[in-house]
Amino acid sequence: MKDVYVIGAGMTDFKPQPDVPVHELAFRAAWDAISASAVPLEKIDIAYAGHAYQGPCFGQKTLMRMGATGIPIVNVENACASGASAVMGVIHAIKAGEAEIGLAIGAEKLTSPGGGFLPIVADDLDSAMGRVMPAAFAMQARLHMERYGTTKEQMAKVAVKNRRNAMRNPRCHMRKEVSAEEVLAAPMIADPLTRLSCCPVSDGAAAVVIASGEVARRYAAKPVRIAASVLVSGSRTPYGIVDDRSEMSIRASRKAYDIAGVGPGDVDVCELHDPFTIAELIHYEDLGFCKPGEAGRFIDTGQSAIGGSVAVSPSGGLLAKGHPLGATGVAQIAELFWQLRGEAGGYQVAGAKVGLAHTVGGGVSKLESGACGVHILVA
Amino acid sequence: MKDVYVIGAGMTDFKPQPDVPVHELAFRAAWDAISASAVPLEKIDIAYAGHAYQGPCFGQKTLMRMGATGIPIVNVENACASGASAVMGVIHAIKAGEAEIGLAIGAEKLTSPGGGFLPIVADDLDSAMGRVMPAAFAMQARLHMERYGTTKEQMAKVAVKNRRNAMRNPRCHMRKEVSAEEVLAAPMIADPLTRLSCCPVSDGAAAVVIASGEVARRYAAKPVRIAASVLVSGSRTPYGIVDDRSEMSIRASRKAYDIAGVGPGDVDVCELHDPFTIAELIHYEDLGFCKPGEAGRFIDTGQSAIGGSVAVSPSGGLLAKGHPLGATGVAQIAELFWQLRGEAGGYQVAGAKVGLAHTVGGGVSKLESGACGVHILVA
Repeated sequence: MKDVYVIGAGMTDFKPQPDVPVHELAFRAAWDAISASAVPLEKIDIAYAGHAYQGPCFGQKTLMRMGATGIPIVNVENACASGASAVMGVIHAIKAGEAEIGLAIGAEKLTSPGGGFLPIVADDLDSAMGRVMPAAFAMQARLHMERYGTTKEQMAKVAVKNRRNAMRNPRCHMRKEVSAEEVLAAPMIADPLTRLSCCPVSDGAAAVVIASGEVARRYAAKPVRIAASVLVSGSRTPYGIVDDRSEMSIRASRKAYDIAGVGPGDVDVCELHDPFTIAELIHYEDLGFCKPGEAGRFIDTGQSAIGGSVAVSPSGGLLAKGHPLGATGVAQIAELFWQLRGEAGGYQVAGAKVGLAHTVGGGVSKLESGACGVHILVA
Repeated sequence: MKDVYVIGAGMTDFKPQPDVPVHELAFRAAWDAISASAVPLEKIDIAYAGHAYQGPCFGQKTLMRMGATGIPIVNVENACASGASAVMGVIHAIKAGEAEIGLAIGAEKLTSPGGGFLPIVADDLDSAMGRVMPAAFAMQARLHMERYGTTKEQMAKVAVKNRRNAMRNPRCHMRKEVSAEEVLAAPMIADPLTRLSCCPVSDGAAAVVIASGEVARRYAAKPVRIAASVLVSGSRTPYGIVDDRSEMSIRASRKAYDIAGVGPGDVDVCELHDPFTIAELIHYEDLGFCKPGEAGRFIDTGQSAIGGSVAVSPSGGLLAKGHPLGATGVAQIAELFWQLRGEAGGYQVAGAKVGLAHTVGGGVSKLESGACGVHILVA
């Protein structure tokens, strides 16, 4: 089976950009990724574009801006895992021998036209009954607090850490440090989650150029190998009305570790799906960075900070960098690419060799099924 | 590279089914395909679901009805080529060695909530200016008439043929024969296209089970080999304001013929993208069944009828069977699967050995880019 590598990455700022068409955002990210890879445009064999709400033929509308309209372009949707699914599609095409070089794009514009409110889906009973995302995560937080004694202060530390990381990443939406006291004192959204415990409403796009091994070494002095690309589906809450773990994340990460031949202890840098502070704590446990119930202590002891045992979301994560849905999964791969090449500037994780990207999305109840993507990259 | 085969197919009726949820339609098609393949549910490694307008996590919502929520599920959109893109995604996953057996689903519900009108896309200048699909195809028809002397009567014969084919296919939406005179006398939609020159507004779903060679032979006595799976992007009108050919169809079919090692003269049965009568004539030429300008004579001499040199859309095609957007590309593969196994019942093409599926979609002008999928299947 062919080895597959990332050889270029591009990304726009993540922030409200209501006046920039989303195809323009995606185009800029794609252009930057292609330029960074030094791959001539005509050498790109296939593109996958991940997004959730940006309309028909999104990838085509993006790539025709650079004249690349002849290649196969597939638009994929998988809620918050849309970007991860786009990356997987390109990887499969290359491994299949159907492409040597491919482009994965992720993009989303959340500030318009809905002003940050996701479109209501007619058959989404959960949302109709009030179990919108902040409420669902608040219930998770309550359960984790109840079961393990996790505190609001520990949750607040996630926001503090990711905001601090974001101070060094110019692409981030939220570039202002906050204290735990400020997080706790912010307006309540869904108890115990305050406004500073939730990711902001951002627009943005990211892209990566992926190539087979032979070709990758022709273009890149330091290609970054994709050691595992895993997508799973499932319910967010298979075990009950509310779960304090993510079964999809557990299953996807275990499979990815097996394929890559590494374990949680080998991961130097992780871009983790943290739309709410509690999510990051729960996912420490899901991804095996600590045992169930120990996430509070994990953040308390600074193990997920830059310089800790595994730097989690040095980019700022969804909480501080922003979460333009379809962009996120691709942006995570771009961030790991930079980290594993030592090109992450002020938020570089020293000596990072193994990176893990994790994104999970979809409906919030047993009645809904979503997707989780885990990629492991190795320098 | 692995050989890939179709080993099962399922399909709902194509017709208005306003009271059936679209996930239920897709579930029924998927269930029938899996049952037909005799593959145990837990042996299916991946699923791709193609649709254009059916909302987030469509594939997940469909497959959780049968408990298959753990596998990777990717939702793809590519306008009318959404179904073909889903098929390609599964093929790539299998060829990549990431799956042994995969499921491609296509589905669409057009009767609700919009009552058959496609959602207006904010940046679609063409539609806003009145160049909706019937108008665009009418302009193509006018150009073909002007350039080659193609007649309204020749166009009408396409509807007559496909309606006649549909009389033998119980899944079709339009199961009533029409005469050329009736087609010509029907209410005018966009001159020269009358209502009987246009495909109806249908709901429906289709699914196919695809497997690698080793596995296919374990389950199917007569697996049908997918000899080429080609997707391209491009504009419908790269050469001018209106074109009387489809550059995407020409390019995709040439590439597919090359890969499959067959030519247009080898194709026994073709499921062709015929949303309007003129489209079928133009695509005869695009796919190489006849030379440019000769499509009128091709239908006049009965060469595209069942029993002719290449039976085109024996299923009834989009014109008579219906065109639930995302379903169409998968349904074409299902139809070819049945034809090449001799299981097409009343509309069987005797001795069919080579089948071609062709679907093309996306915006109508130079400013818009779409997708075209061509698959070649061999008995």
